[in-house]
Amino acid sequence: MWAMIGTWRMALEAIDQVVKSDECKKDAGSAIVKAIKQIEDFEYFKSVGYGGLPNEDMDVELDAGYMNGDTLAFGAIMAVRDIKNPIEVAYALSKEYTSCLLASAGASRFARNHGFQQKDMLSPRAKLHYLKRMKEERQVELKPYIGHDTVGICALDEKGSLCAGTSTSGLFMKKAGRVGDSPILGSGYYADSDYGCCSATGLGEDLMKGCISFQVVELLKQGIPVQEACSQALQALHDRLLRKQGKVGDLSIVALDKNGNFGVATNIDNFSFVYASKTQAPTVYLVKKQNGKMELEVASQQWLNDYLTTRMAAIEL
Amino acid sequence: MWAMIGTWRMALEAIDQVVKSDECKKDAGSAIVKAIKQIEDFEYFKSVGYGGLPNEDMDVELDAGYMNGDTLAFGAIMAVRDIKNPIEVAYALSKEYTSCLLASAGASRFARNHGFQQKDMLSPRAKLHYLKRMKEERQVELKPYIGHDTVGICALDEKGSLCAGTSTSGLFMKKAGRVGDSPILGSGYYADSDYGCCSATGLGEDLMKGCISFQVVELLKQGIPVQEACSQALQALHDRLLRKQGKVGDLSIVALDKNGNFGVATNIDNFSFVYASKTQAPTVYLVKKQNGKMELEVASQQWLNDYLTTRMAAIEL
Repeated sequence: MWAMIGTWRMALEAIDQVVKSDECKKDAGSAIVKAIKQIEDFEYFKSVGYGGLPNEDMDVELDAGYMNGDTLAFGAIMAVRDIKNPIEVAYALSKEYTSCLLASAGASRFARNHGFQQKDMLSPRAKLHYLKRMKEERQVELKPYIGHDTVGICALDEKGSLCAGTSTSGLFMKKAGRVGDSPILGSGYYADSDYGCCSATGLGEDLMKGCISFQVVELLKQGIPVQEACSQALQALHDRLLRKQGKVGDLSIVALDKNGNFGVATNIDNFSFVYASKTQAPTVYLVKKQNGKMELEVASQQWLNDYLTTRMAAIEL
Repeated sequence: MWAMIGTWRMALEAIDQVVKSDECKKDAGSAIVKAIKQIEDFEYFKSVGYGGLPNEDMDVELDAGYMNGDTLAFGAIMAVRDIKNPIEVAYALSKEYTSCLLASAGASRFARNHGFQQKDMLSPRAKLHYLKRMKEERQVELKPYIGHDTVGICALDEKGSLCAGTSTSGLFMKKAGRVGDSPILGSGYYADSDYGCCSATGLGEDLMKGCISFQVVELLKQGIPVQEACSQALQALHDRLLRKQGKVGDLSIVALDKNGNFGVATNIDNFSFVYASKTQAPTVYLVKKQNGKMELEVASQQWLNDYLTTRMAAIEL
């Protein structure tokens, strides 16, 4: 068996590509890196890599994380500028035993010293988004943008290895230096080839309060089926946050068990994800909530087309 | 009931002070901040605050984290230079709902904008340590220093609030930008007033692989007694790391349950900690391992004196 799952519809073309190249069968880790790299490079996704929306200073600050579920090795970078493919740097750091988690200038230096490509990551389009926002009234509350956020991909290959990776430009207009859950091991991503892997997207500050990806893998370890593990972990965190702090941010997760079955859970109504496996071509699902229950619906061709059209529409100042 | 527990003997004078001032009875959070601040200010502790040992560039880069177990609010800063008291900044960030985790220059800016004191954090003594190390052969492996490392303090106050905080300068000679477990929620620290709180010290990269502080609180939630929760979580992580990666770094944790009972676990032979409660004056314990079993021994006056004498001895180049 092999399988891949990625957060949001934006993972579709990239997962399609690694499925076609057979990468996902051979090596879960390099399949994740290749897929996320492609998403980072696509300038119309405004929350990952090039084209990602900038922080309050109009600087694009990027985060990425990667974990190998065979060895528990991980690598991650936080609040990094001008590095073309953060996921590649995170992957390279997972080859180290110490200094696997690097912030800001130190992370950039590691990337430069290891020959990773530098690039001005503020796209003309992202700059337009910034200028447009500056003209509008500044919103008081930072929120994840509806429908496109952190990309998180989990993969199982035919050797039975499970890996997980993330990449994001974080919240639009975030404070300089702000880091969410994406590069944080156990929150944004976690993998253990004995049990499963998980990745999260949403309001990082709330996701971190539940170490949500680690928690899902813990539930898999206890023998709970992957869909139930996701639903249970997410609902418990949602309820606890509501009780303790009186409000809850957007929380969404995707997971795989060691047999390649997927689980998904969310507390929002617009979550989409992509799943592919040995027995299923890459498919985009929309998550709908009906009377408190979650239902999965395969996205129509119309919805898929509309999605890209909206993302690529001209921006007017 | 009220109680406090802190990693390493270095927490003694600071815990003593907040016990005398009754702070620990009234407010767990401010007791933690006051205690850690005092440790940060004491220049002879070379792994926390002023006097902390620098990274490979001779820059002191500091990390701190804080969590409020009533609300699950947290704040943390990473790889920050020239801020006198990182724990105060972490505490201030825990009052925010977003942008609670800040890295490097962004964290410094927040600190400056909120009036926190700036200071050149490289002490003359730490500089001597650096120059001495540069004269010696550079060691291949970065390791936590024996006997004095991250300070992590957990506290329970008479209102039943549980909080946890950490502060560290991280590994001596670390790579620029390297961040360990200390500012990472769920790894370096975690608190939930319904169950308990925990803090960790050791090789951050390995501690993060187990979200160890979160995991201990999860076990408390399951009704496992606090000492057993610590032993079980630490042993499981140790065994898993050994199996998966063939080696294990130093791992040590301290925890409190909601009744103020403490738990402790370590895989090294030199761990010390400080515990104080309504019914017990501040006491330094040494953790000894005998035939695989852990035994606690109250530190002798001689040991306590020797400890400070060693820390304060002249350094020769």
